[in-house]
Amino acid sequence: MQEESNILPPLNPVKTVETISNFIRNKIDESKTEGLVIGLSGGLDSSTAVYISEKAVDKDKILGLIMPSQTTTPEDLEDAFILAEHLGIENEVINIDSLIEPFGELCIHSTSKYYNQLANANLKARIRMMILYYHANSMNRLVVGTGNLSELLVGYFTKYGDGGVDILPLGDLYKTDVKKIADYLQIPEKILTKAPTAGLWSGQTDEEELGIKYHLLDEILYLISTEKLKDNMIAEKLGIPTKEVLRVKNMMKSAEHKITPPPIPKIR
Amino acid sequence: MQEESNILPPLNPVKTVETISNFIRNKIDESKTEGLVIGLSGGLDSSTAVYISEKAVDKDKILGLIMPSQTTTPEDLEDAFILAEHLGIENEVINIDSLIEPFGELCIHSTSKYYNQLANANLKARIRMMILYYHANSMNRLVVGTGNLSELLVGYFTKYGDGGVDILPLGDLYKTDVKKIADYLQIPEKILTKAPTAGLWSGQTDEEELGIKYHLLDEILYLISTEKLKDNMIAEKLGIPTKEVLRVKNMMKSAEHKITPPPIPKIR
Repeated sequence: MQEESNILPPLNPVKTVETISNFIRNKIDESKTEGLVIGLSGGLDSSTAVYISEKAVDKDKILGLIMPSQTTTPEDLEDAFILAEHLGIENEVINIDSLIEPFGELCIHSTSKYYNQLANANLKARIRMMILYYHANSMNRLVVGTGNLSELLVGYFTKYGDGGVDILPLGDLYKTDVKKIADYLQIPEKILTKAPTAGLWSGQTDEEELGIKYHLLDEILYLISTEKLKDNMIAEKLGIPTKEVLRVKNMMKSAEHKITPPPIPKIR
Repeated sequence: MQEESNILPPLNPVKTVETISNFIRNKIDESKTEGLVIGLSGGLDSSTAVYISEKAVDKDKILGLIMPSQTTTPEDLEDAFILAEHLGIENEVINIDSLIEPFGELCIHSTSKYYNQLANANLKARIRMMILYYHANSMNRLVVGTGNLSELLVGYFTKYGDGGVDILPLGDLYKTDVKKIADYLQIPEKILTKAPTAGLWSGQTDEEELGIKYHLLDEILYLISTEKLKDNMIAEKLGIPTKEVLRVKNMMKSAEHKITPPPIPKIR
């Protein structure tokens, strides 16, 4: 059973799912599109997003794309596939490795002296975005993002990769909220309990990379962005060092460029 | 010589170039990055953007990527290359065709019954974005967008393709303004006078695809977005049918989702 937070205000799962379903339907109507395309990783966020999508629109209007690479575990691949089959939505497995290789060959000349893991991880996320949009453009559908509020606020996603989407149905839910909603939706226990990972390299876990547990991160984020408390007040309230609050604030600042349109100099 | 507009307020080229150069320098400082990566097409916008970039930062901090495909004319390729060499910036030619082919093979199963030109055109723009970011991430640099205000307002660009950039130095200049600035910067006449094209398929020109000349489009856009005149007043002022104004307004409305962050349903 999940720890309850004393900091985040309680969430009504029934109302939350209803609000998100309505939002999805409205966005399809407004954009005059005919359905949804969503990337399924076998993780909590994409599973929750597709469960809610299935409540919002007819099954035959949802395409789930499962896009494994070398670093995808067989378990995640299987979980994503079983989920799609269980929901009865159209789904397709597209392995992205055959795109990464020619890409590396093309760019090796100009980037070999700069190799870094981040560029390669981001590349994967962008290839998946491209595949999602290729389908969405072909089928006149919207790309459903699976990002949550915690990720958005600290920038834990790839700009124009998994951040490159048409709608963000989970964008106002902290990671711990998503877990609650997933619980309410009766998403398979196996998916509920696995360690969150962006899956961009082997053994990657979100909490290790972020250097903080989501439970605490969400409370800090909430106290900063909604309660607007001072750093030392937050530290005191949560019984943590002030420098931990400052670290999160710095992540938020660095993330700003990822969630706002590209800046433009004012001329006239 | 270019027609002068009686509608757009005059532009001071000296001040404009200075404002944009300062903007570029500030953005590099703020983001703690070490330079710029820019895609060069041989067209007016990217040529103008790289000329201003070269005034803003040292030459060795700029990488120009020339990314032709099957539909790129040899002339554009040559113009882009000559421009980069003339400015003395590092440059690299990367043909993207070898990425398009395996992509098509991967997706053909699920999209064959939906083939459309738009999905393929957008794909090219997104592959270029991916290559730009692969270099920018590897080198810790910013991706310079080359979009202008006219394109941004009517959505004449690919979402997360050429729209996927870190900064938009020309984003407050209408296409006709860019031409004036290019003139002032003494960009080669050949580039100044060629017909604007997104180059996503053979023989494509912007003005044919948009169904309007930039000169008129810019005046309509200015009267709508800055002067906020009524449709019939704009039509009268420009001596055009009101339905032409409405057509532009519709383009602007359809473009909104491309220049704003993905929508999120409010939960708490």
